[in-house]
Amino acid sequence: MSLIFETPARAGAVLEIDLDAIVRNWRLLARRAAPAACAAVVKADAYGLGAAKVAPALAKAGCRFFFVATLDEGILLRPLLAEPVEIAVLNGPLPGSAEEFAAHRLLPVLNDPGQIEDWARIASCEAAPPALLHLDTGMARLGLCEPEFASFLEGGRGGNAILWRGFMSHLACAEDPRHPQNALQRCRFLDGLRRFGAVCTGSDASRDSLASLAASSGIFLGRDYHFDLVRPGAALYGVNPQPQHPNPMRQAVRLRGKIVQVREVDRGQAVGYGAAHLMAHQGRLATVAVGYADGWPRSMSPRGLAKIGGKRVPLIGRVSMDLTIFDVSAIDPALVRPGAFVDLLDEEYGVDQAAADAGTIGYEILTALGRRYHRVYHGEAS
Amino acid sequence: MSLIFETPARAGAVLEIDLDAIVRNWRLLARRAAPAACAAVVKADAYGLGAAKVAPALAKAGCRFFFVATLDEGILLRPLLAEPVEIAVLNGPLPGSAEEFAAHRLLPVLNDPGQIEDWARIASCEAAPPALLHLDTGMARLGLCEPEFASFLEGGRGGNAILWRGFMSHLACAEDPRHPQNALQRCRFLDGLRRFGAVCTGSDASRDSLASLAASSGIFLGRDYHFDLVRPGAALYGVNPQPQHPNPMRQAVRLRGKIVQVREVDRGQAVGYGAAHLMAHQGRLATVAVGYADGWPRSMSPRGLAKIGGKRVPLIGRVSMDLTIFDVSAIDPALVRPGAFVDLLDEEYGVDQAAADAGTIGYEILTALGRRYHRVYHGEAS
Repeated sequence: MSLIFETPARAGAVLEIDLDAIVRNWRLLARRAAPAACAAVVKADAYGLGAAKVAPALAKAGCRFFFVATLDEGILLRPLLAEPVEIAVLNGPLPGSAEEFAAHRLLPVLNDPGQIEDWARIASCEAAPPALLHLDTGMARLGLCEPEFASFLEGGRGGNAILWRGFMSHLACAEDPRHPQNALQRCRFLDGLRRFGAVCTGSDASRDSLASLAASSGIFLGRDYHFDLVRPGAALYGVNPQPQHPNPMRQAVRLRGKIVQVREVDRGQAVGYGAAHLMAHQGRLATVAVGYADGWPRSMSPRGLAKIGGKRVPLIGRVSMDLTIFDVSAIDPALVRPGAFVDLLDEEYGVDQAAADAGTIGYEILTALGRRYHRVYHGEAS
Repeated sequence: MSLIFETPARAGAVLEIDLDAIVRNWRLLARRAAPAACAAVVKADAYGLGAAKVAPALAKAGCRFFFVATLDEGILLRPLLAEPVEIAVLNGPLPGSAEEFAAHRLLPVLNDPGQIEDWARIASCEAAPPALLHLDTGMARLGLCEPEFASFLEGGRGGNAILWRGFMSHLACAEDPRHPQNALQRCRFLDGLRRFGAVCTGSDASRDSLASLAASSGIFLGRDYHFDLVRPGAALYGVNPQPQHPNPMRQAVRLRGKIVQVREVDRGQAVGYGAAHLMAHQGRLATVAVGYADGWPRSMSPRGLAKIGGKRVPLIGRVSMDLTIFDVSAIDPALVRPGAFVDLLDEEYGVDQAAADAGTIGYEILTALGRRYHRVYHGEAS
């Protein structure tokens, strides 16, 4: 099915994506991180917003380094970003896929001894791109653990054959600046970087190796966490990198759902599946063409809301697959008619606020944004 | 981005969709509902499984009536289903879109006076398809409420011009056979049907009008709920229509995620974001290339599981965007290596079981199934 629809009359919902806001967010983070370079993480289709639109817009703004999660994502993005722009793949080469990295000029992040070994086998080919080494410093998810790293440094895994573009790790608790894990991971990273540098970047070829630790929230832990390259993702798309402070990022999406039907209801009327909501008063309901199949989470029930003319209307009953019901009793009836829009995400009620109502995080609200939305891109770069 | 990938070596996860299972489920439901006819609900891209594959397979098996939610979905499906197969659009025509229904030979479900009025304007054209009328009997979501229905029957909204193909309503509590709402809705439906028949189906043209009340669970409420046409959706795709009984439906999907990395960890090791999990024992972890951006809900943390060689392994830490971590300490290390698969959904741990672990319903597990999965269709119809 096509991802982008273009006929608004039949649109049940419109997702507007503001490429200028994403570019502004990237510039803010880049200034904050300077003199470190600022990459952009565009994995998961740019957190659901469309990597094919977002990445070229950021490249035009000066971004020279992109991260995706999977080889598939890298292959789709490569033709859209002319070299020397670099694209690194965080999950690294799955067994049997190293050659495809080389063929598509994608930089692998090497996470374990097997990936290093696979890469060493093709690293001597002239066409092989350089690689990044990932040291796990406390996340236990991807990256070499300490004994593997020690063994790697002893040269037992073919590491010498590899041209290194970077040395990286990933913070587990960066959004909480008081968490002791941050300093611990930084300390391990520094130690690893020193040992890596001594063994691997002596040659001319690897002297451009970049040290990279911070993602979005890590940038706000201060200069000590920036090293050579920062890798923001979520903050580009409007997620607050410091939940305990006001959000410095612009919202990148606006979501509006179309009213399908408006009805008057009596007190005591059961609403939605399971008759889970009973009207406590006589009133008016609007049924909107957005449901959990569009990524508007079922866990929004019954805390979510929408806005009509700037005024909040509560979500009632259960979110269903294609529809959600709002109590619009307090709204001027002239504003509430089939075909009119309600606001589901805007600058004030953004992805973090929606996430709080759904019991999740802004990242998941973004990546779940649905395929049935009519997508409209705004901004110079669109 | 392409929805279907074909290169398994780089696949981080493989979603297998069993079209034969879906066809078997449809036949089981059709037998159960006979002599009522059995439609198929393929909205939300056939609950995430691919309407372009599922609908033709069901048409080949004899299904003659399909329901989608939106006009966009109907337009995509129409070229794949040769007439006389009928496609009805549950949300009905949004303002300004009635002509497109006619142009694409899609039957609108008319839910409110405005939709009836819009349709009446084009109903006299020779090319206009017939319509279904939706009476709300207790859901307060879509469909005419009682006063609107009464006014419609008085002919105030142009209803006489419309050729009727059906009269329908939707049950709110059908999965709980003891819920009093079921009998109440059926009673209102019967009353509405009698009044509708007296006014609207007297003419030859509308004598083939079908009465339809039951979706998946409604079929299991018994013969009294079947009327002329039943409309199963979820049960086709493996959701149990009677949660209090063993599931009579086959699972239609199998999901396998690929291991990216395996690591040994010490007691006390922090795992994943927020260092939310601390290892209570020395052990072994496997990081799998499936995350919430693939629709594997973050709310799976920390109850979810996977299987390796038929043995369950617990999900630990938080599901992250592209990755999930499992404790594989109890598994033969020979089975746990990068590139090997873990089972996330299978016949035994199906969509309902996964939903229970994620705090949602099987429907949402299905519709969230991700775009990064390499999709493989099985079955004669594929």
